[in-house]
Amino acid sequence: MSKEEIGITVSKEIDFSEWYTQVVLKAKLADYAPVKGLIVLRPDGYSIWESLKTTFDRKFLKNGIRNGFLPILIPESLLGKEQKHFAGFNPEVFWVTHSGENVLGDRLALRPTSETLAYTMYSKWIQSWRDLPLKINFWNTALRAEIKATKPFLRTSEFLWQEGHTVHANQEEAENEVMKILEIYKNTVEDELAIPVVTGKKSEKEKFVGAVYTTTMEAIMPDGKALQMGTSHFLGQNFSVPFEVKFADKDNIEQFAWQTSWGVSWRLIGAMIMVHGDDKGLVLPPKVAPIQIVIVPIFKSDDSKEIVFKKVNEIYEELESKQIRVHIDDRVELTPGYKFNDWELKGVPLRIEIGPKDIEKEQIVLAKRYNREKINLNFKEIEKIVTILDEIQKDMLKIAKIKAKENTSIISNYTEFKSKIVKGGFLYAYWCGKVECETKIKEETGADIRVIPFESKNTDGKCMYCQEQSITIPIFARGY
Amino acid sequence: MSKEEIGITVSKEIDFSEWYTQVVLKAKLADYAPVKGLIVLRPDGYSIWESLKTTFDRKFLKNGIRNGFLPILIPESLLGKEQKHFAGFNPEVFWVTHSGENVLGDRLALRPTSETLAYTMYSKWIQSWRDLPLKINFWNTALRAEIKATKPFLRTSEFLWQEGHTVHANQEEAENEVMKILEIYKNTVEDELAIPVVTGKKSEKEKFVGAVYTTTMEAIMPDGKALQMGTSHFLGQNFSVPFEVKFADKDNIEQFAWQTSWGVSWRLIGAMIMVHGDDKGLVLPPKVAPIQIVIVPIFKSDDSKEIVFKKVNEIYEELESKQIRVHIDDRVELTPGYKFNDWELKGVPLRIEIGPKDIEKEQIVLAKRYNREKINLNFKEIEKIVTILDEIQKDMLKIAKIKAKENTSIISNYTEFKSKIVKGGFLYAYWCGKVECETKIKEETGADIRVIPFESKNTDGKCMYCQEQSITIPIFARGY
Repeated sequence: MSKEEIGITVSKEIDFSEWYTQVVLKAKLADYAPVKGLIVLRPDGYSIWESLKTTFDRKFLKNGIRNGFLPILIPESLLGKEQKHFAGFNPEVFWVTHSGENVLGDRLALRPTSETLAYTMYSKWIQSWRDLPLKINFWNTALRAEIKATKPFLRTSEFLWQEGHTVHANQEEAENEVMKILEIYKNTVEDELAIPVVTGKKSEKEKFVGAVYTTTMEAIMPDGKALQMGTSHFLGQNFSVPFEVKFADKDNIEQFAWQTSWGVSWRLIGAMIMVHGDDKGLVLPPKVAPIQIVIVPIFKSDDSKEIVFKKVNEIYEELESKQIRVHIDDRVELTPGYKFNDWELKGVPLRIEIGPKDIEKEQIVLAKRYNREKINLNFKEIEKIVTILDEIQKDMLKIAKIKAKENTSIISNYTEFKSKIVKGGFLYAYWCGKVECETKIKEETGADIRVIPFESKNTDGKCMYCQEQSITIPIFARGY
Repeated sequence: MSKEEIGITVSKEIDFSEWYTQVVLKAKLADYAPVKGLIVLRPDGYSIWESLKTTFDRKFLKNGIRNGFLPILIPESLLGKEQKHFAGFNPEVFWVTHSGENVLGDRLALRPTSETLAYTMYSKWIQSWRDLPLKINFWNTALRAEIKATKPFLRTSEFLWQEGHTVHANQEEAENEVMKILEIYKNTVEDELAIPVVTGKKSEKEKFVGAVYTTTMEAIMPDGKALQMGTSHFLGQNFSVPFEVKFADKDNIEQFAWQTSWGVSWRLIGAMIMVHGDDKGLVLPPKVAPIQIVIVPIFKSDDSKEIVFKKVNEIYEELESKQIRVHIDDRVELTPGYKFNDWELKGVPLRIEIGPKDIEKEQIVLAKRYNREKINLNFKEIEKIVTILDEIQKDMLKIAKIKAKENTSIISNYTEFKSKIVKGGFLYAYWCGKVECETKIKEETGADIRVIPFESKNTDGKCMYCQEQSITIPIFARGY
């Protein structure tokens, strides 16, 4: 392969969609599986998911949430028990009809989500107020048949996610849980992936089928499309009634419980690629990078090789002792230039270059991936690298916030809206709260209400569509 | 519920099968799912799996193995590419035939195992010797329709496992990998779960369908039945040829690669329950226990409560600072006696009892779960608990080894074999190596060759069945 074929061959500005696919495949994060709509994660891709998983697990546990396991097969009869919920998922369900040569009696669904199964179990496990709250999270995959073209991490028929399901003795506690989870989602995405998000509620039209309301975090992508990054649902008693999730309260009176469910998926990885990547390839935030620093030794003769590698190994040991994930690229048959491109494509946050001249000057060259800055660092200052990684992480979020702001507008009328939506972006606009306007706007512009931000107040505006009194200022956008 | 209903109501000696099921359900490790053959893991059960996962991940990574993700759906055409393999799994496969209302063109199998899918991908990813070895592990579930009655962790139609798939440039390296993995399996099971195993090869009849040979680790359960605890397969080029897993060697000549695959499942948890449990319930080895120590405060008046809790909290802090997983049972409405039974049922390795009298004597009472021994420990000796947990772990393995030995016999003739097999156990017996004898023995006694131990030499015996020259001394047993 020529150098061009190995690297990214299109510009992010010019063909965002093709650029994205090339980054995913060429940085070896994922690949297409033999079945249409499905992808395989290679170790560098899965490692990012594992890193997020570790962070979420720590935060969930601190919040009293433990992990469990649910099987993938759900009987059709069970899935249909909450009817709106069933109607919402039914068109996307994969159905198992045979085991070996045998026809199954009841068709089995591959889980599109596990509310129905989890709550069947919960109803057995919960008897009294002493069993509450019950808070369990499940790391698994969900399956929903996609008919549109596969987009790794963004549109696949099977996706990795976590789904949490909690049960509470009263409404207030359940609603607090919904918000606590959304806060964990938001700070994890901002702190680990350096992606700013807006949190708020979904409209009635866009909420999870079966929920009383859905809270969401949304991010704006560089191509002007919005991406739903995670949702946390207040289910009220919508499921506890049909699934009989009941408990005897302290006065021994039977009550239906209050429930929540919430999830994030590997979409988060897709967002990270889109927000930070550039024309050289992937750009990884240090906190989730499988390799945080790559050391590229530069040498010509065998003499210089020995001197260089002695120092390289010293630096490697020092960085590793500081829990930094560091790798030495000691491949002999490749030039430093080739290696630089290779690691830039893979998005490694920091590269250390070290050759005989650097050793004379008692320094290393540090190349930052995200802004392509190069600095020299004296041998005595190696420990500063910990701080530098931290600064990179923070600066990436700062830059992402600036870009998101550039992609956000406040709209005063529908004409302006229709002109702006072509370019995309988050568009704040007055809305009367009626689903008719929401539907018309969607039909005419392709934009839907992504989120009604929590800070959105009922101000004295007019709905941009019908000119009636506005009740909120949601963010409209075209979405993924 | 009465006390009897909460606790285990049958003896392990008298009704092993019922005892096992009660322990699983009443210790809240798992429960039956709505679909026959499937189970759900509750947090205490899943936590044991997570603990094993963490240990395996650390050891795999040290051995250069990283994790990836494979989808659950495999096209029928792909599954059939290695014919023996397909024939072996076909009767157990769950088939997806519809998505929503649409009939699928090619039926999709729910993964019974992922060789065919993984190697389709590997064949794309591997071009040259530089891409080798390729070593990826996948934590997922496998689905194989079970027709017999469900036995949690032992016989379920979906089970949690890991499947590792490695590719090598030559036979020797691949065969070494097979052995390295088996060693990781063995030391993890012995060190973490305190279960002794015998390692060796499977017979031709019992090997993995598609493998050149299968290595295995087997354990003997207290009821005299053998349990396969994990297998590591040398696949040779059996898959690399049909799946075209090829590489250009250093002389640029194309070669078919050499492969391995290997897996352990949540059966390990089933084995742990069977080997260590007793009539009071579960007995957990400290290393995998979700809670390692439970503190039960004992008090009558409010005065004593305050004094006791002050000390309880001190001890809690001290133990937690030593990374011990400790829990205070501060439930007010329950008696100490009830709590003791409850935590014994759940198998918590150590219980600390502390009441006003203990405080006067400046001591705590330590109750060990595995041997029900009680000792006093002075307040000044709390740090000894770390060593005590370690000793419990080691002693549990020692006891398990003694029991396994008691359940192992060396057989001199077929009459003795037929009489002994009724009671069960590992039976070492001479074998000529012919599948005919193996099959006859199975038909007549229900016992199969579990493992041909590595140390088994070709000694000067006669096959117990046909009296011809023996070539090995395998272990025969009836199995799960």
